[in-house]
Amino acid sequence: MSKILRVNMKDLTCKFEGVPEEYKLFGGRALTSAITCDEVPPKCHPLGPNNKIIFAPGIVSGTNAPTSGRISVGGKSPLTGTIKEANAGGLASQKLGKLQIRAIIVEGKPQEKEKFYLLKVNKDGAELLPADDLAGKGMYEVDEILFQKYGKVAIVGIGPAGEMMLTNSGVSVNDMENRPGRYAGRGGMGAVMGSKGLKAIIIDDEEAPGVGIVNKELFDSGRKKLANALTTHDVTKKGGALNTYGTAVLVNVINEAGGFPTRNFSSGQFEGASKISGESIAEICKKRGGEGTMGHGCHPGCIIKCSNIYPKEDGTHHVSCLEYESDWSFGANCEIDNLDQIAELVRICNDVGLDTIEAGCTIAVAMEGGLLDFGDGEGAINLLNEVGKRTPLGRIIGNGTEFTAKALGVSRVPTVKGQSMPAYEPRAIKGIGVIYATSTMGADHTSGYTIAPEIMSVGGKEDPLNVEKSKLARAFLNTTAFIDSTGYCLFIAFAILDIAEGFEGVIETMNGVLGVNLSGDDWVNIGKETIDKEREFNIAAGFTSAHDRVPEFMNIEKLPPHNVTFEVSEEILDSVYKE
Amino acid sequence: MSKILRVNMKDLTCKFEGVPEEYKLFGGRALTSAITCDEVPPKCHPLGPNNKIIFAPGIVSGTNAPTSGRISVGGKSPLTGTIKEANAGGLASQKLGKLQIRAIIVEGKPQEKEKFYLLKVNKDGAELLPADDLAGKGMYEVDEILFQKYGKVAIVGIGPAGEMMLTNSGVSVNDMENRPGRYAGRGGMGAVMGSKGLKAIIIDDEEAPGVGIVNKELFDSGRKKLANALTTHDVTKKGGALNTYGTAVLVNVINEAGGFPTRNFSSGQFEGASKISGESIAEICKKRGGEGTMGHGCHPGCIIKCSNIYPKEDGTHHVSCLEYESDWSFGANCEIDNLDQIAELVRICNDVGLDTIEAGCTIAVAMEGGLLDFGDGEGAINLLNEVGKRTPLGRIIGNGTEFTAKALGVSRVPTVKGQSMPAYEPRAIKGIGVIYATSTMGADHTSGYTIAPEIMSVGGKEDPLNVEKSKLARAFLNTTAFIDSTGYCLFIAFAILDIAEGFEGVIETMNGVLGVNLSGDDWVNIGKETIDKEREFNIAAGFTSAHDRVPEFMNIEKLPPHNVTFEVSEEILDSVYKE
Repeated sequence: MSKILRVNMKDLTCKFEGVPEEYKLFGGRALTSAITCDEVPPKCHPLGPNNKIIFAPGIVSGTNAPTSGRISVGGKSPLTGTIKEANAGGLASQKLGKLQIRAIIVEGKPQEKEKFYLLKVNKDGAELLPADDLAGKGMYEVDEILFQKYGKVAIVGIGPAGEMMLTNSGVSVNDMENRPGRYAGRGGMGAVMGSKGLKAIIIDDEEAPGVGIVNKELFDSGRKKLANALTTHDVTKKGGALNTYGTAVLVNVINEAGGFPTRNFSSGQFEGASKISGESIAEICKKRGGEGTMGHGCHPGCIIKCSNIYPKEDGTHHVSCLEYESDWSFGANCEIDNLDQIAELVRICNDVGLDTIEAGCTIAVAMEGGLLDFGDGEGAINLLNEVGKRTPLGRIIGNGTEFTAKALGVSRVPTVKGQSMPAYEPRAIKGIGVIYATSTMGADHTSGYTIAPEIMSVGGKEDPLNVEKSKLARAFLNTTAFIDSTGYCLFIAFAILDIAEGFEGVIETMNGVLGVNLSGDDWVNIGKETIDKEREFNIAAGFTSAHDRVPEFMNIEKLPPHNVTFEVSEEILDSVYKE
Repeated sequence: MSKILRVNMKDLTCKFEGVPEEYKLFGGRALTSAITCDEVPPKCHPLGPNNKIIFAPGIVSGTNAPTSGRISVGGKSPLTGTIKEANAGGLASQKLGKLQIRAIIVEGKPQEKEKFYLLKVNKDGAELLPADDLAGKGMYEVDEILFQKYGKVAIVGIGPAGEMMLTNSGVSVNDMENRPGRYAGRGGMGAVMGSKGLKAIIIDDEEAPGVGIVNKELFDSGRKKLANALTTHDVTKKGGALNTYGTAVLVNVINEAGGFPTRNFSSGQFEGASKISGESIAEICKKRGGEGTMGHGCHPGCIIKCSNIYPKEDGTHHVSCLEYESDWSFGANCEIDNLDQIAELVRICNDVGLDTIEAGCTIAVAMEGGLLDFGDGEGAINLLNEVGKRTPLGRIIGNGTEFTAKALGVSRVPTVKGQSMPAYEPRAIKGIGVIYATSTMGADHTSGYTIAPEIMSVGGKEDPLNVEKSKLARAFLNTTAFIDSTGYCLFIAFAILDIAEGFEGVIETMNGVLGVNLSGDDWVNIGKETIDKEREFNIAAGFTSAHDRVPEFMNIEKLPPHNVTFEVSEEILDSVYKE
């Protein structure tokens, strides 16, 4: 029997509740957003007692459906002030699914300041334990300590950044090697977890009942169809682009398209792109050997395996994962073309508990503000290390791009609703710019990955420089909100956009688990309704169409090499939610 | 012939323009807001090339009308993101009036980074000069250097805070002793001036033509009526409350009413109130003698004279002015009951270029965040000195209360629209809370000083704990916007609210200068229209009724000694602009 775990940090209680009928079809983002809308006052202070942080596995998480281990983390974001859902791979989602826990809602605030707790969840129930021994520690050490003590558990935790409630704090999930490489990074949900005094959650699925699949036959049929699509499509198959070179296979592609943001979004091409490409990462992994590997999975049962373990020179583990966004944010955007330095920057983020996209954009803005030079990799490492040292400078950097820009008087700030833009330039790839501008989450490529049709000719073909992208954007926003609710990785989209049977498979697995008979349209409509609900939350929190905009400088500065501004009119942006 | 001076910082040009017909009746705030609405894109970055900073004397400034030397400084605020008008006394307004300059509009941004200029304005015209010798200097030194070089000029300038573009930077105006004690402090307009590369403006009125008064007879009649009201009313007369004890006469009054925010707005009464009262300031001035004095005017021709010069122990000048808001913000709100420490904190603000209300609230939030203890006056001085040292900690503090709260993870933040609340507790004095919440400027008592009827029984009598304040608020908002456009100090309101002839006098002086025949209602209606215009700007910038709210903690925490929350409903707040 599925249930919801409610944890009250004020009186330190844990209680289980049934899943309300109206949440029956909701998993992942659909559920975190529904609970946030129903229980969190939109105007509350994100770090105050009235905000909540919600953890929800997807509907199929915990089953043997392929690539379905994503966990959603939701609430009101201290970075953007909007509703927020960030999701991650790692071990947590599937173990929660197997324990039949559809969501953990953490609410209230401990009476004692700077007191931290550990939430322990297993087949017998849940309890809060003091975590004084973990407070102040980085996530590598926390994962190690908890694994030693509790065995092969899933660990969801925050680093010092989250403890300090810095608004770029992410929520870490341990990976299959028990390292804190998987992050629900965006939007500062780590700070909300910190404000609740919750240092970590351990989830032990020993003797768990497993996901109760109502229609096993239908589920199995769907699972096979999806697996077939994933193993067939060029992007997702074994030996395909993602599996061979990881997500950083995009470095050369996006750079070639002139949409690879360089030096704080002042050019669309980076002269050092090839040095930080997926191909270079693969080459280094091969050359150095040891633990270095491509084709690594971010959670058990993934058959795409786009992750990697980047090795040090001697072949020992440096960091997992060096993916496209992180590679770009510390790389091209900071003019750093040294993969070892980039790997170290990612490792620091994973340890201290920061989102890499935001952190890279923050450093680039600090470079623009004169704090260090573009290209200064060692300087960037020193700067990022300030966060863990809890210095004033570290608190500035740990609060993200817009905060750092304000500290330094920088007015070229590549954010929407306070959140940094990812690795695609809106001026060169208009559709993703429309997504950044209008997403309910602030600038976020995972809200609607229009890069697929705009650059990769997946799911159709769109001219990246064409401004008429409102219909496309709305379709991607809706579909993505649905996928984010399933537990499947967003990357299944490459296959199911092109292979109809794959999409059918997804629907069958969802219907199979829940014992319902919804059509694909029905399910995507739940995605649409999730977006509508999120928008209502944001509107009540004070957001208007004035916030659905790219930053001013992108409308007045032309971006090389295309030498164009964003050009998408306010009318087009405003029509996204009229579609 | 009145004119507008337009200064372009991109190509370093100055040119004079006629006053457009539609601005004919506008001075001060009516003019800065009209120009901002007409020329500044509401969604522009406040520190980017598209924002402007506008300086405008009031309509009667430069005449011999009493207490009429206020200058308005407007544009889009980097602190609040709203439209902004802050006004100050000092020498500038009257000299601009005498030069028949109705406004200086500064636009564009220098091509060279960190290059600063001096704008020199006199009867012959205006020119931009390099100000490399002034860059980096505090305002006491800047005023001294410029006075030595240019004689008895008015000096409008920014300290290091403005140069760094910190969002709590004010714009300083020199006083009659050529000290930088008069500030258009609120809303960070100093940062906008800094973003323009404008370190200072000197205004020399030698051989200036003087204000062209069209109907001298009417003007003189009005001037006398107003002077009579001011010299008769108990609050404003010579030897009256303001003249004898300065604005800090309110310390005991507001403390008694339980509305004196203490320890970051956690109590409405301060046990050390009497030690920092206006009476204590007066006693110290008397005891120490020397330069110490009460009844000091903030600009020539003021007949209220509520300012003071606070002396050091040896009688030499420490700071001017120690007024109620500053006294409170560093005093009760930081639990500091030592006037010498408070004076030093104000002096640092005047030198570095910070608003004292915001700076005091910032330190209180830093105290709540554990950076130093409440009551630690020496610690507060050291902390504020970080700003001038340009350290990361100084940049945090210099960016104000909300920024500092974010840096330290503090969720009890006494701001509206990003601007700190002044010295009156919304929970104990509901009307001023309604003003804070709904003002177009963020939390601001000078937007509508309902304290007059709520506490002082001036202009009627209202129960401070009664929540039905929307009509009162709207009336005060409108009237204040009118007064802010005249050049008169807001404090004439005490007299003209109670003495009808005084109000008549104001209207006659306005009509006399411009040669028009508007009624009092007509003029107040221009105030209303100014507010409506400002609201339109804010709405276009993305503000909604969700921003017209006091901070969450005031709705959930009860304030001693009345032990009440804010209690004013959202409906009442939203009805302010429906009145």
